[in-house]
Amino acid sequence: MTLKTLGAKAAAALDQELMSTCAFSLDQLMELAGLSISQAVYRVHPPSKGHKVLVACGPGNNGGDGLVAARHLFYYGYHPSIFYPKRGKNELYQRLAKQLEDLQVPFVEDFISAAENTDHIVDAIFGFSFSGEVREPFPAVIEALQKSDKPVTSVDAPSSWDIEQGPPKSGLGSSFMPTALVSLSAPKPLVKHFTGRHFVGGRFVSPMIAEKYNFQVPEYEGVDQVVEVDVTGMKL
Amino acid sequence: MTLKTLGAKAAAALDQELMSTCAFSLDQLMELAGLSISQAVYRVHPPSKGHKVLVACGPGNNGGDGLVAARHLFYYGYHPSIFYPKRGKNELYQRLAKQLEDLQVPFVEDFISAAENTDHIVDAIFGFSFSGEVREPFPAVIEALQKSDKPVTSVDAPSSWDIEQGPPKSGLGSSFMPTALVSLSAPKPLVKHFTGRHFVGGRFVSPMIAEKYNFQVPEYEGVDQVVEVDVTGMKL
Repeated sequence: MTLKTLGAKAAAALDQELMSTCAFSLDQLMELAGLSISQAVYRVHPPSKGHKVLVACGPGNNGGDGLVAARHLFYYGYHPSIFYPKRGKNELYQRLAKQLEDLQVPFVEDFISAAENTDHIVDAIFGFSFSGEVREPFPAVIEALQKSDKPVTSVDAPSSWDIEQGPPKSGLGSSFMPTALVSLSAPKPLVKHFTGRHFVGGRFVSPMIAEKYNFQVPEYEGVDQVVEVDVTGMKL
Repeated sequence: MTLKTLGAKAAAALDQELMSTCAFSLDQLMELAGLSISQAVYRVHPPSKGHKVLVACGPGNNGGDGLVAARHLFYYGYHPSIFYPKRGKNELYQRLAKQLEDLQVPFVEDFISAAENTDHIVDAIFGFSFSGEVREPFPAVIEALQKSDKPVTSVDAPSSWDIEQGPPKSGLGSSFMPTALVSLSAPKPLVKHFTGRHFVGGRFVSPMIAEKYNFQVPEYEGVDQVVEVDVTGMKL
C-alpha cells in the first residue's frame, strides 16, 4: 500500500469545492484545521515539555490556521507568542488576530530572538499554494528554522519546500527537516521526502470528496481531530 | 463554593459580545459549540453502546449547534439522523444541513417513530432564548422526550424548561429530566433543578469575558472541548 497524496492543484480545487458545493465557510474550515494543528502540537510537545510555543504565521490561509492553533494552545495551558510580519488583509485573519490579542497573546517582531526563547515552534508560514521563491521577510525565518535546535511542527508543508518536489536541492530550506508535519485533509507529494512524525488532520472530508479526489481518509480514533500515520498513510 | 450561572439576558449579551467586540463569527462559535456537544455525547454514550443517534433540532441557534454536533458524531462513527421540522432561514443553518446531506445523514419527519428506533437522543430544540410556550410541532416532541426510555442529552437547556426557573410546575415538560446536559459557555440558572450528568462546553471564553460576566470557566483537561462538573461547578 502506498500513500496517496494530493498535488498543489488538486488541493486548491478541493478547498474550493469544500467552500462552494460542500457549503463550508472558510471560518469553519480554518477553525477545524487550526484545532487539528493544536492537537498535533499537544502530542508532539505536551505542556509538560515546556509551555512556550512560538507560532510563525505567513500572510495566507496557512498563517490563518496558525492563528487558530495558537488560540487553542492558549486554552490548553500553553503560552503562545505569534510572529506575523505580513498580516493578511482578509477580515477573517484580522478577527483571528483580535481573538488572540484579547487573550493577551504577544505578537513578536524579532523572530530570531523569539525562537531562541521558546520551547516549540509552529511553522504556519507557507502552505500548499506556495511555489517559487521565499519572499522577504521570510528567508531569515526559514534560515533560523533550519538551524534551530527547537522542535518544529509544520503545517501542511515545511515552509520553503516545493509541494510536489519536496526540499530545495540546495540553499535556503534544503536542510530544513521539521520534527513533525500536520497534513491538512490529505498529505501532499512532498511527504515522500519527510522523515519526521507525520499527522493528518482536518476531520471534515466526506467519503464522497475523498473518493472524488482519490485519497484515503485515515482512521481517526475517538473524538480526535488528528491522527498520526506511517509512511504508507496507515494509522500508527 | 456555589455554582455561578448566567441568566437568559446575560447569556444573550455574552453571545452578542463574542460576535462583536470579541470578533468571533457565528460559524466559528457554532462549530466549537457543536464539537463540545459531540464530545459530551461520546462520553455519555460511546459508540459501543449503540451507533444510532437522533438529533432533534429547533429553528434557532440551539438547532444549529445540534446540526454541527451531528456532523462530528458521523465522523466519530455514529449513525446520526436529524429531526428538523422548522428549518431556520439563516443561510448558515442551510449550509450546516447541506453538510449533513452530503454525508447522507437522513432527515426524518416522524419524531415519535424515530425516537423508538434510536440508541440516544440529542435535544437541541430550545436554548437560552426560550421562554413562554412550546410552539407546534414541538409539544408532541417534548412529550415523547419526557416519556422516552432512551438516554437524552440536552443542549444548554432541557427543552421546555424555563431558563431561570427550571422545569414547568405542571403539564408538558414538568417531568422531563434528560440524562445529560451540556451547558455552553456557562451553566444557566435552571441547572439547580437538574439532576443528571452535567457538562460544560465551549472552550473559547476568555478570562476577560468570564470576569466581566462573573462566572467561572471550569478546568478542562488536555485538548478536551468539554468538561464534566459537579453541582458546585468543579471538574469531576
